Amino acid sequence: MTDAIGLGLPERQRRDGLPERVTIWEVGPRDGLQAERTALPASQRVELIRRLAAAGASVIEAGSFVRADRVPQMAGSGDVLAALGDLDARLPVLTPNLRGLDDALAAGAREVAVFLSATERFSEANLGAPKAAAEAAAAAVVRRAVEGGVRVRGYVSMVFGDPWEGPVEPSATTELAERMLEWGASEISLGDTIGVATPGHVHRVVDAHRDRAIPVERLALHMHDTYGQALANVLAGLEAGVRIFDSAVAGTGGCPFARSATGNLATEDLLWMLDGLGIEHGMDLSAIADTGSWLSAQLGRATTSRVARALAGGKEAR
Amino acid sequence: MTDAIGLGLPERQRRDGLPERVTIWEVGPRDGLQAERTALPASQRVELIRRLAAAGASVIEAGSFVRADRVPQMAGSGDVLAALGDLDARLPVLTPNLRGLDDALAAGAREVAVFLSATERFSEANLGAPKAAAEAAAAAVVRRAVEGGVRVRGYVSMVFGDPWEGPVEPSATTELAERMLEWGASEISLGDTIGVATPGHVHRVVDAHRDRAIPVERLALHMHDTYGQALANVLAGLEAGVRIFDSAVAGTGGCPFARSATGNLATEDLLWMLDGLGIEHGMDLSAIADTGSWLSAQLGRATTSRVARALAGGKEAR
Repeated sequence: MTDAIGLGLPERQRRDGLPERVTIWEVGPRDGLQAERTALPASQRVELIRRLAAAGASVIEAGSFVRADRVPQMAGSGDVLAALGDLDARLPVLTPNLRGLDDALAAGAREVAVFLSATERFSEANLGAPKAAAEAAAAAVVRRAVEGGVRVRGYVSMVFGDPWEGPVEPSATTELAERMLEWGASEISLGDTIGVATPGHVHRVVDAHRDRAIPVERLALHMHDTYGQALANVLAGLEAGVRIFDSAVAGTGGCPFARSATGNLATEDLLWMLDGLGIEHGMDLSAIADTGSWLSAQLGRATTSRVARALAGGKEAR
Repeated sequence: MTDAIGLGLPERQRRDGLPERVTIWEVGPRDGLQAERTALPASQRVELIRRLAAAGASVIEAGSFVRADRVPQMAGSGDVLAALGDLDARLPVLTPNLRGLDDALAAGAREVAVFLSATERFSEANLGAPKAAAEAAAAAVVRRAVEGGVRVRGYVSMVFGDPWEGPVEPSATTELAERMLEWGASEISLGDTIGVATPGHVHRVVDAHRDRAIPVERLALHMHDTYGQALANVLAGLEAGVRIFDSAVAGTGGCPFARSATGNLATEDLLWMLDGLGIEHGMDLSAIADTGSWLSAQLGRATTSRVARALAGGKEAR
């Protein structure tokens, strides 16, 4: 098979009933890198973001304004933002508290995000506060941001299951979503933090939001690929009308062997499916794959993207 | 997170319009192993098949009656079959020609399979004959098998794209499917040999068969995960009414870096989705995952199943 030309792109075959266009919210520089062992300095994160933008990414989560002693991978997020003032892409950053928000605004942030957990145990473990206290803190951040004309995304973690509490009722998520939208958030990202969701579950959760009169345009899906289900779940989300999907170039996001903590959907694999379905997203698969290769080299680890591996194998074979 | 209980199984959330029950055609002992570098002796393949059957697999492709100098991994397929006469599971074997068929029948085969390619180039490269000659050979095998009361599956390769010829028209496949069914084959397995398909393409191909009055009950999908699309494509197949899916325990099937040759969908990852969707299949995910771990150890390679990795990571963490 040495003379095979290979197929660098999927054949375009549309499917009725799916959106014409989606927004990919690239989380690699934040959700991806914050869980990697190797901490990249701000200058390399700036280069990553510039490469992603050059490849067509229009929304790139650029950093997190948290204590550098807790999340050293995100140290210097202010420098990252400040160095990217000329970029056209939207560059949201994570701001877990008012101090983080003020620092982000000072660095030029025009868009921020806050996190809440659908479950009590993860709120305590990850946000360091019971749900009620975490909500109060988030409400203050969202309100101050919105007052300042800054767009806010609200994340909900553990929407599809929790490693301590087990199954999670959709109402636990819809209540948080309603509250965050009331405070002024523009959209809600539904996180399958441990990657356990399956397609019927995605429909149920999206339907639960629709039942609470939350427009599907305001929902994003953030699926982890821990159990290999992320892309099938995105397909279910597309069918349910969702038009915003989170993914991370090269599938960054920590060790694939940690059961409850990892595996972002790789942007490359998502693009292959969207390109095949003829759904517009504005990114260039080949350029994103090159960016993923570059990033994997910086991190000194193999990509988890199957598309990236297949394309690299094809290049070697020629 | 050390005290996380983890979730060993997905939450069951049915989805309207999908089949209640499917058949998983386990191809690991044949399609998987024949592409692995390490050739397992017949005795180990017998053990693999017994483990799969004990885990609930009801259809297990047990071997291939080809020349052992060409495919050493399948040497002794007669011994494998002969050693499994007591097993309840269906044990189809690949019989590319009349000699292979006679050997298979002599070893006790009650079910066989033949291969054809939707494309000319792959027929020549893989079957060693132009399409017309390969069809004539397959017709002879199917007819003799059916006359002897032996059930026959017809495989079609390169249904969704070909590394030399590029895009493949669905009519190239439907013509072969119609012919094989005429000869007496019971079902047709549609192979995405290089893993390039996306969900809309799956619908298009299944629809093309329906348009030719081929019942969807007679179709199986054989999706490779080279570009990470296999499970999303299975979901599309379920929506299109397909009820037979091929997969390989531990995702065996060669090196994930060879662009045009690999990556069976891992049975473990398929079971996670089916269990989540509440679709019956008769297999036990945990027992299959254990079988996959055992097989990976025999082969001295890491599993490609994300479910298997996540479950193994969870065990280590406890």
